[in-house]
Amino acid sequence: MVSWVPVSKNSDFTIYNLPFGIFETKRISARAGIAIGDKIVDLSVLHDEGFFSDITQLPNDIFLRDSLNDFIALGKAVTKKVRERVQELLNDEKEDLKVHQCRGKAMVNRKEANLLLPVKIGDYTDFYSSKEHATNVGTMFRDPDNALLPNWKHLPVGYHGRASSIIPSGVPIKRPKGQYKDANMEAPEFGPSRRLDFEVELAFITGKATKMGDSISTADAEDYIFGFVLFNDWSARDIQAWEYVPLGPFLGKNFASSISPWIVTLEALDAFRVAGPKQEPEVLPYLQCEKDHGFDINLEAYIQPEGKNSNKVCTSNYKYMYWNIAQQLAHHTVNGCNINVGDMYASGTISGPTEDSYGSMLELAWKGTKPLTLEDGEERKFIEDGDTVIMKGYCEKEGIRVGFGEVSAKVLPAT
Amino acid sequence: MVSWVPVSKNSDFTIYNLPFGIFETKRISARAGIAIGDKIVDLSVLHDEGFFSDITQLPNDIFLRDSLNDFIALGKAVTKKVRERVQELLNDEKEDLKVHQCRGKAMVNRKEANLLLPVKIGDYTDFYSSKEHATNVGTMFRDPDNALLPNWKHLPVGYHGRASSIIPSGVPIKRPKGQYKDANMEAPEFGPSRRLDFEVELAFITGKATKMGDSISTADAEDYIFGFVLFNDWSARDIQAWEYVPLGPFLGKNFASSISPWIVTLEALDAFRVAGPKQEPEVLPYLQCEKDHGFDINLEAYIQPEGKNSNKVCTSNYKYMYWNIAQQLAHHTVNGCNINVGDMYASGTISGPTEDSYGSMLELAWKGTKPLTLEDGEERKFIEDGDTVIMKGYCEKEGIRVGFGEVSAKVLPAT
Repeated sequence: MVSWVPVSKNSDFTIYNLPFGIFETKRISARAGIAIGDKIVDLSVLHDEGFFSDITQLPNDIFLRDSLNDFIALGKAVTKKVRERVQELLNDEKEDLKVHQCRGKAMVNRKEANLLLPVKIGDYTDFYSSKEHATNVGTMFRDPDNALLPNWKHLPVGYHGRASSIIPSGVPIKRPKGQYKDANMEAPEFGPSRRLDFEVELAFITGKATKMGDSISTADAEDYIFGFVLFNDWSARDIQAWEYVPLGPFLGKNFASSISPWIVTLEALDAFRVAGPKQEPEVLPYLQCEKDHGFDINLEAYIQPEGKNSNKVCTSNYKYMYWNIAQQLAHHTVNGCNINVGDMYASGTISGPTEDSYGSMLELAWKGTKPLTLEDGEERKFIEDGDTVIMKGYCEKEGIRVGFGEVSAKVLPAT
Repeated sequence: MVSWVPVSKNSDFTIYNLPFGIFETKRISARAGIAIGDKIVDLSVLHDEGFFSDITQLPNDIFLRDSLNDFIALGKAVTKKVRERVQELLNDEKEDLKVHQCRGKAMVNRKEANLLLPVKIGDYTDFYSSKEHATNVGTMFRDPDNALLPNWKHLPVGYHGRASSIIPSGVPIKRPKGQYKDANMEAPEFGPSRRLDFEVELAFITGKATKMGDSISTADAEDYIFGFVLFNDWSARDIQAWEYVPLGPFLGKNFASSISPWIVTLEALDAFRVAGPKQEPEVLPYLQCEKDHGFDINLEAYIQPEGKNSNKVCTSNYKYMYWNIAQQLAHHTVNGCNINVGDMYASGTISGPTEDSYGSMLELAWKGTKPLTLEDGEERKFIEDGDTVIMKGYCEKEGIRVGFGEVSAKVLPAT
C-alpha cells in the first residue's frame, strides 16, 4: 500500500500506522486527527464531507471535541472502521479524497499543529514489568543474589501514579524540589533534586470501561485496549529513595510524566506481535495466555544538552517485557477494580539485557558510578538543567514501518 | 441560631453545618443540595426563585449538574456566600423562605433521596498520617522498637490510590479476589481475600487548582481545601501483604473506597479547630505552620452482621493526626505536582492511643490474635460476608453539633 501523501522512508507515520491524536493550529480549535507523513488528516472535515456517512454511530461533532475519549468509547467496531476508511482514502489507488475539493482543508501540515493530550486520563497506573530493570534496581539497592523480590515473578507489580501531571511532548518540566537524605546526612535536607532521571516506557490506553466488581480475562484484555503511546516516567531518584517506604513512590514521580501525542492503535501493531520471555515458575491460571501479547518495538532515548546535538544513550525494545498487557490488565481487574475509557497503564522502565539497553540513567550510569560521556566530552550521571530528553519508538518488518514519533521535554531549573 | 426546619438533638445536619451534596429522587434528576435536619435544600429551586440573584457569578444551571466541581471551582468567595445565604434563609427568625410558596418544592425529604458522589474525583491520594496507626502496623509487621520508618516523622508519607472505585455510601462492595501467600504457603494462592478490613479515615477535597510547577505553602493550603467527607479505605490485608513490596499497595486497596455523600465545609469545621500533637523532631521549614490545622472530630466505626444489630468497634478522633491538612497539601505540591478541583486526599487510618480507638480490624483484633466479640457472641478478626461497616463522624462543642452523617457499605461474597 502506498499513499498519495508523501511519506519519507524513515517516517513513523506510514499508511500502515494512522495513529489518532488531538491537535490545534493558530486557525482551528482542538480536534481529532490522524497522522500520515508530515500531514495530519482533520477527521472533522472528512466527517463533514460525508466520508463516514455509513458509520452511523458517529455523532456530528465527535471529531471536534478536545479529547478522543468519546470517540474511543464508541467501541472498536467503530474506531476500526474510521481508521480503515482513512486508510482507503489515503491510498494512492483511490481518488475520492486525493482529487476532492476538500483535500486542502482536510490535510493540515503537522509542523503548524500543536499536539495536545490525546485523552482525558482518569486513572494512571505504572507497572514494573521489565525483569532486567527490576533486577538492575534490586542489584543496586538490595542484594545481587536476590535482586527480584519474592512476588515479582508471580504477579505484574504495579502502583497508582498521578494522572494530573501527565503532559504531552514538548511541554518543558521544572526540576522538582523535595526532601532527600543521603547515607552521609544526619537529617533530611530540602532542595532541588540532584538525581533527576528519565524512564523509557510505553503506556497503553483503555478504550472500554468495566463495572466495579467485574474482571477482564487475559483472553478478552485486548478488546479493552485502544492503543499505545511512548511514556517518559520522570523520576527524582533522591526524593524517591527517601520517601518510598513503605507505601511506594510519590513525589519522586508525580511532578511530571511526558507522553507522545499520537495513539498507535493495537491494530497497527498487530503485524509486530511476538512471544514474550518464558515465564518460570508457571503463573497462576488467571495470568496464563493463549496467544502472544508481546510486540517488537524498538525504543531509543536521547539526551540533548542545551544548544548541542542529541546523544543516543539507550537502545531498548518492548519485546523484553516479562509481563504482557493482557496479564497486566487481567491482574489489575482480578479484584474487581473498575477501569474507564482513557485510563493509562505504563509498562515500567523497559530495560534490555545489554548495558546500552537500560531504560534509565540510574541503570545506564549505574547509580552514578559509570557516567556516560556525551559527544562533546560532557559527562552525565543524571539529567542536567537545560537537557532535553527525547524518546522514540518504532516497529519495522518487511519494509513496513509503524512508529510513535517522539516524546520530548526540556528540563528547566528549579525555581 | 435555630432553624425553622426541625432538627433533632442528635442530628449532624444543624444550621451550623450545611454540607453540600449531589442528590436525585424518583422525580428529579441529579442536582446540588444542602442537608438540614431530615431535609435537603434543593439549591436549584432557590436559584430559580432568585434567592441568589446578587451572587452574579452563578451560572443558571450551576446547581443542576451531576457533580459539585463547577460550583466549587467558582471559588470560596462564591461558595461561602451561597452557604451563608442558605443559613439566613433557614434561620427561624427569617421569613423569606419559611413562608415562600416555593418552600414545598425547595425542601426534599432526605429519605426519599439517593445520594450520589458529590464530586468527580480526578486524582486520589491516601496519606498515612496517624502516628498511632503507623506505629501499630510497624510493631506488628516489623520491629516494636523501631516501629516507625526513618522518614515517617520528617514528611507526611502518602501514595496515589484509585479514583475510579471511590463509591458513595450505600453501594455494596464485593469481596475482592487476588493472590496471597501466607508464611506457611510454598507458593502464592488465588482466591477471595480472607482478611478484608476497613480503615477509618477522613478525606479532604480540593476546591482550587494549581498549575504544574507551582507549590502551595502551609499558610495558603486551606484556601485550596473545600471540605471533608468520611472515607472507608477498604483493604484486603492478605493481598496487600504479598503485593506491596517495593511499590506500595495496589490491588489490596483499589477494589473500593466508600465515602459519605455530604461535604462538610472547612467553614463549618472552623469552630472545632485544635492544635495537633507536638512534632518532634522539628519539621523542615516548608512543613512548619503558623496556625492550628487540626480538628476535633469524633469518629466511630460499627459492624452490623446480616440481620443483626450494629456493634460499635472503634471510637477515635481526627485530632490525633500527627500530620495536618496544610502540611499534607504543602508536601504534595512542593515538587510542583499540580492539583485539580475535586481531587481527594484521605488521611490514612485514624487510630488513637487506646485499644478501642484503633481505626482498622488489623489493629483492633491485633492481626487476628485478639478477635472482637460482637453483641450476640459472634467473633470477628476481619470483616465477614454480609457484614455492613458503618462509620460516623461529628464535632460537638458548647451545644453546637456539626457532623458527617455516615458512610456505610455491605460486603457481598466474592463471585
